[in-house]
Amino acid sequence: MQYSKSVSCFRSSAIRDLMSLANRPDIISFAGGMPGNELFPVDDVKYIINHLTPQQWVDAMQYGQTAGYQPLINAITEWLKDKGFPVNNNKVIITTGSLQALNIVGKIFIDPDDTVLTENPSFIGAISAFRSYQAKIDGIKMNADGIIIDELKEKLQTTSPKFLYITPNFHNPAGLTYSAERRQELLEIMKDTNIPIIEDDAYGELLFDTEYKQTIQPLKCNIAHEQQIIYCGSFSKIFGPGLRLGYMLMPNEIFRKAEICKQSMDACTPCISQVLAHQFMTSGKMQKYIEWIRPIYQQRRDDMLAAMKQYFPQEATYVRPHGGFYIWVKMPNGVDETELLKRVIDAGAVFVTGGTFDPEERSNGYMRISYCNTPTDQIDIGIKIIGDTMKQMMK
Amino acid sequence: MQYSKSVSCFRSSAIRDLMSLANRPDIISFAGGMPGNELFPVDDVKYIINHLTPQQWVDAMQYGQTAGYQPLINAITEWLKDKGFPVNNNKVIITTGSLQALNIVGKIFIDPDDTVLTENPSFIGAISAFRSYQAKIDGIKMNADGIIIDELKEKLQTTSPKFLYITPNFHNPAGLTYSAERRQELLEIMKDTNIPIIEDDAYGELLFDTEYKQTIQPLKCNIAHEQQIIYCGSFSKIFGPGLRLGYMLMPNEIFRKAEICKQSMDACTPCISQVLAHQFMTSGKMQKYIEWIRPIYQQRRDDMLAAMKQYFPQEATYVRPHGGFYIWVKMPNGVDETELLKRVIDAGAVFVTGGTFDPEERSNGYMRISYCNTPTDQIDIGIKIIGDTMKQMMK
Repeated sequence: MQYSKSVSCFRSSAIRDLMSLANRPDIISFAGGMPGNELFPVDDVKYIINHLTPQQWVDAMQYGQTAGYQPLINAITEWLKDKGFPVNNNKVIITTGSLQALNIVGKIFIDPDDTVLTENPSFIGAISAFRSYQAKIDGIKMNADGIIIDELKEKLQTTSPKFLYITPNFHNPAGLTYSAERRQELLEIMKDTNIPIIEDDAYGELLFDTEYKQTIQPLKCNIAHEQQIIYCGSFSKIFGPGLRLGYMLMPNEIFRKAEICKQSMDACTPCISQVLAHQFMTSGKMQKYIEWIRPIYQQRRDDMLAAMKQYFPQEATYVRPHGGFYIWVKMPNGVDETELLKRVIDAGAVFVTGGTFDPEERSNGYMRISYCNTPTDQIDIGIKIIGDTMKQMMK
Repeated sequence: MQYSKSVSCFRSSAIRDLMSLANRPDIISFAGGMPGNELFPVDDVKYIINHLTPQQWVDAMQYGQTAGYQPLINAITEWLKDKGFPVNNNKVIITTGSLQALNIVGKIFIDPDDTVLTENPSFIGAISAFRSYQAKIDGIKMNADGIIIDELKEKLQTTSPKFLYITPNFHNPAGLTYSAERRQELLEIMKDTNIPIIEDDAYGELLFDTEYKQTIQPLKCNIAHEQQIIYCGSFSKIFGPGLRLGYMLMPNEIFRKAEICKQSMDACTPCISQVLAHQFMTSGKMQKYIEWIRPIYQQRRDDMLAAMKQYFPQEATYVRPHGGFYIWVKMPNGVDETELLKRVIDAGAVFVTGGTFDPEERSNGYMRISYCNTPTDQIDIGIKIIGDTMKQMMK
């Protein structure tokens, strides 16, 4: 058998291995980036399913249009319009999870050996997807306010990137949110190029600290710059990742290419998921659900920050996340994160080492801890395990 | 914006355009390859949904393993084992529709400008998928018994194909079923190469003429050859395409690459679809459903053949399908299929021109008519429209 060159670009299965660890029942897991198992809107789904019309059942079971189930496209378009998105010169395409959205972006822009710019660290799914199209991934460092502009400038001068992929809100894994100034600087720099910006906002609905409400407005809402931006949203954090539902809002010209590309990938996104999501949105259940889960995740963040304050050595530093699922912790000097992980797993907890999120998988002295799928009492126990182990290793 | 080379390989949206036509309410459509709208097992799905356990709900809503929901993998493996498939040196991977399966095959085997062999005509989804990886698609003609062996031999000598893609049972669009002799000849020829065979059996459960039960046994069940074969199955025709569920049975070595590839594509197949399919299979409902729909589709085939006999000119010839969804009709001399299509649409019916299924989209003097999604009374009216129009054009 003679395989393609892509095969050698496949990243080893870091995500899957994480998931395997996260699924062990005897361990306190801060590893996965998944919603809380006990938080899914199961009763809403049951209600919706039992009230579908015969036509909705046909729509759910039959093939659908490639761009998506039109009532859902309409509902998302309205939802985005209400939030200030420019829906007139753009179109919504529904994708099979937001990971498919990144594959569509990869397929329509990347030729082998093309450079793409990401943050460093970056979402591991994006790294895997872009790599699978044989891209060279050039990661740009961040500080607490977002991507470092001087580094971005330099990369724009020294490479010819096909696009820039960023997550300005509640970054995975770095937990940070771009400041308003950084957003503006970024847009000004990018304006002079014709390079598309892929804006991933998978966690955008999960803002805890409401004083940041203005700050987190997506770049795509900036009228002066929006035609350069492909905006990616997801239902994974506000409904359920098992439905595999994401979407993109993109300029009309790119939309057409994305649609043909998706047609060759899976013909259409699962219609049963789309019909459910349409009812979930238009019945008002989704808005209520978001308002219900937001303070629950906020409480978990607060519990984790409190436990870290109590148990972590002062030398472990981090940026307080204003929303989302993650805290990104810089190791105390002398503590190797891989060795820490081994000892922590032995002691009954698990996190993800920072190097996993480096486009070149270099060790970077960080770890990602997720509070999303861990109830409060477990957070305290697990964080104590990590903190105690760190302290032992510092002796 | 600078697009990738793939973009120029995207086929114009033939599938989508077909679907648009097929969705017009005022037309009798023989165009789509979709199950009958009124035949979905909606009551079964409602029953299943209302009897899921809390754990099954979590499994349905949460991220799942990349290779698939383990209970469904186990159920499919048992099902295949009972049918004589070699499940020991092979593994099942669940895919987001069988079109994703073909994308995985494309991604792990095709580099730009590689040749792949298909039948001519071939499944349009396969053509689109392989093209999107910038393959050169070399189509091999068929006669009533299957792919023409001399042509296959010649292609194997003159090209270095990455794989051979075939649909031996109830071919889409050609309606034919490979004879037992042709299957054996094919395997003997391919044995001397190390070229994988992709065997698509999306319609395998829809056998009408039971005397062909032995004939249609998949190539993958042939122990002497099975390690060369990737077998693709689908739930689209036996449950619902809106669930987007397919699977592959593949040698262990290839499985590992397919799994990593899929991980970068969509992380996992929709879990809600997988949980439903697992219950549908293991409760025995799927077997009953298949036994219920099979005679319905058989009746539609018989009705269509009867109407063709009554209304078509004798010069229009075709192979009687033993199962599946399609009849492939050779036009009478002098009847241009594109002109016929225009006139037939004006008169209130629609089919697909044969050239759509040619890897190079050359006009070939055929049409595909599907009986799958058209009730009996409509079949008679629509076939009369086509037959009358043909006769007018022959005058």
